[in-house]
Amino acid sequence: MRKALDGLRVLDLTRVYAGPYCTMVLADMGAEVIKVENPAGGDDTRRIGPYKDHQPGEERSGYFAMLNRNKYGVTLNLKHPTAIDLFIRLVTQADVVVENYAPGTMQKFGLGWEVLQQANPRVILASISGYGQTGPLSARPSYDGNAQALSGLMSLIGAPDGPPMRVNPAIGDSSAAIHAAFGILCAVYARERTGRGQWVDVAQLDAVFSIMESAVVNYTLAGNVLGRVGSRHQDVCVYDVFRCRDGYVYLGAYKPHHWGNLCRLLDRPGWVTDPRTATNDQRLAHYEGLIKPVIEAWAAHHDADALVTLLDAESIPCAKVQTVDQAVHHPQLRARDMVVPVAHPVMGRIELPGITCKLSDTPGGVDRPPPLLGEHNAEVYGRLLGLTADELVALRRDGVI
Amino acid sequence: MRKALDGLRVLDLTRVYAGPYCTMVLADMGAEVIKVENPAGGDDTRRIGPYKDHQPGEERSGYFAMLNRNKYGVTLNLKHPTAIDLFIRLVTQADVVVENYAPGTMQKFGLGWEVLQQANPRVILASISGYGQTGPLSARPSYDGNAQALSGLMSLIGAPDGPPMRVNPAIGDSSAAIHAAFGILCAVYARERTGRGQWVDVAQLDAVFSIMESAVVNYTLAGNVLGRVGSRHQDVCVYDVFRCRDGYVYLGAYKPHHWGNLCRLLDRPGWVTDPRTATNDQRLAHYEGLIKPVIEAWAAHHDADALVTLLDAESIPCAKVQTVDQAVHHPQLRARDMVVPVAHPVMGRIELPGITCKLSDTPGGVDRPPPLLGEHNAEVYGRLLGLTADELVALRRDGVI
Repeated sequence: MRKALDGLRVLDLTRVYAGPYCTMVLADMGAEVIKVENPAGGDDTRRIGPYKDHQPGEERSGYFAMLNRNKYGVTLNLKHPTAIDLFIRLVTQADVVVENYAPGTMQKFGLGWEVLQQANPRVILASISGYGQTGPLSARPSYDGNAQALSGLMSLIGAPDGPPMRVNPAIGDSSAAIHAAFGILCAVYARERTGRGQWVDVAQLDAVFSIMESAVVNYTLAGNVLGRVGSRHQDVCVYDVFRCRDGYVYLGAYKPHHWGNLCRLLDRPGWVTDPRTATNDQRLAHYEGLIKPVIEAWAAHHDADALVTLLDAESIPCAKVQTVDQAVHHPQLRARDMVVPVAHPVMGRIELPGITCKLSDTPGGVDRPPPLLGEHNAEVYGRLLGLTADELVALRRDGVI
Repeated sequence: MRKALDGLRVLDLTRVYAGPYCTMVLADMGAEVIKVENPAGGDDTRRIGPYKDHQPGEERSGYFAMLNRNKYGVTLNLKHPTAIDLFIRLVTQADVVVENYAPGTMQKFGLGWEVLQQANPRVILASISGYGQTGPLSARPSYDGNAQALSGLMSLIGAPDGPPMRVNPAIGDSSAAIHAAFGILCAVYARERTGRGQWVDVAQLDAVFSIMESAVVNYTLAGNVLGRVGSRHQDVCVYDVFRCRDGYVYLGAYKPHHWGNLCRLLDRPGWVTDPRTATNDQRLAHYEGLIKPVIEAWAAHHDADALVTLLDAESIPCAKVQTVDQAVHHPQLRARDMVVPVAHPVMGRIELPGITCKLSDTPGGVDRPPPLLGEHNAEVYGRLLGLTADELVALRRDGVI
């Protein structure tokens, strides 16, 4: 036993971001993930940049590489009846199937939940979609932006007097993905008692709606419709981002000792007891008119690194707003192995994001590059289905794989 | 067997958001989560709003309610030696311990990993922190804002000419939380083979860094440092948010058939073949100067609902940017049970966010309100440790519970 999920076999029909992120975390933790791609070019992200050294090519996409490391890759044309037979034979030997097609597509392929369940009552199907498998919008086309818009999330992000702002990295995808990975392991745990698999249905809309902190209960319990407040926090104060001479710094000083230390740094010792600023509620009421301008003026006279040094010395939670290149080189992220090297047969040595969950006894790891298109056809179809080299040649000739 | 995680016992030392979200998804799926609070007021969020009907009170916080439904609640003063003895006795009967104290705090309590492991070699400890248990910044105080700033995420969000923008709902917390819940189930799965528990270490910084879509590989593979692009997507086009007469609408029309349909709606049929706009790459190059102003002018003449109707009729992915109250009442989220009622002994009937992972055979559910402070002391300490009513009185008198 090397990794936590060793022994868990996953058939991965997913494409683009949400589905592949889900199966990535499973593969990082040791699951045997077999990525199934259409033979006519495979996953769309093979044709989305960034490309290694800006040179496009099907085996040169960083987008594809980051999400599909550690996986085996086979091709299968799901519009061909023979391919469906082969897939169902794989299902009989699998623990989990993951897909992120539009709802209804699996049924069109002849791979609906009832079919999979009949082939293998122990198999777990996880479906990730924009709106979910049920509900009036289920069949509508949907991306991350739909979830961010409809959930209300976008209405909460941006300047108070500005437009709503999408979270640029597609949070609808990543949030649904990790919820689905959790849901799959819930189903695996349940199966050890019931002996049965089940269908795990995760919607991007639901996933985003579930991570809006107190916005939902603000409305349902108190009738407050929260809106945009910039980078500050609406419940605790001071908690905001300030412009410095050469960048921006976040600071969070709402606990009494942090606030006291900040007052000293600001040369406003009286604010510790001032009835306008002594408590969190008082500060929230007097932030824009009184406190914020003072901190803004103070921050504007410092470089970001110098400001962080001052705040750090007073143990006030703070951080420089880093650009991505700064983050990639930051000693904390490096110490946590959050940027890991992988040797790739076409791209050479590349660096990918590391593994978030650190397990002390059976740690995950990025051990293998993403698969070339169809790289493991012979290995997987040979090992699992006993297909011979001649049979594979025929399947390729017939457009099945 | 009712729910997927029935039989999994979790001791929950967490406070505020990240930790309680993690144990919430475990409890929603059926784990027996025993929330341990200090007797002097309990979780800080009991004193953070929103309060039911705007009336403050320790048992009236919506913030606390949403995160702690389905949990049992006991009190324990971890600064008291007797409390530590009691907690270790609980550990011998637990599967998982979850905590989100600053790194080093558990050791100060006398509850470091080695102590827990010695008490119960099968127990799993999950620690959620800002920077993680290791690395040069590990001991620094850290909130969600630290992770959003240092990871580079904030540098990616906001208007191109505006300041970096924090994701207002604390994504550092929720992202770390769900990664940790996944990590815990990985450890549970591993334990069925190894017989041993392990320590799961999740940092908010790592969790946010891992959900920045292609930003990391853009830098490591191609040297591109991505920045702020407003609500548009930097890789696909058209994918943006537009102002209407009475609000905003997101639309995503980058696939050929969606783009063709949008060109027809815009009365620009020539754009389908125009060498400035025919392909995704061409559109990315001519978006700001050519395409965006035309869509902006078109959108500005419509109400949001009317625009969605037009786009829907052409099957173009789109959604109105809803406010939170609109989202709470939306038929899709209602059909998915994403707003669920709970009867609370003090607040009466309240509505909380529902459950993201839909399992077909052993679905989760919100069956019980959040615990009153110490509500289950007699039940839990009696059932698990055999303590009598007299012993509980003495423990309360001595400030232990």
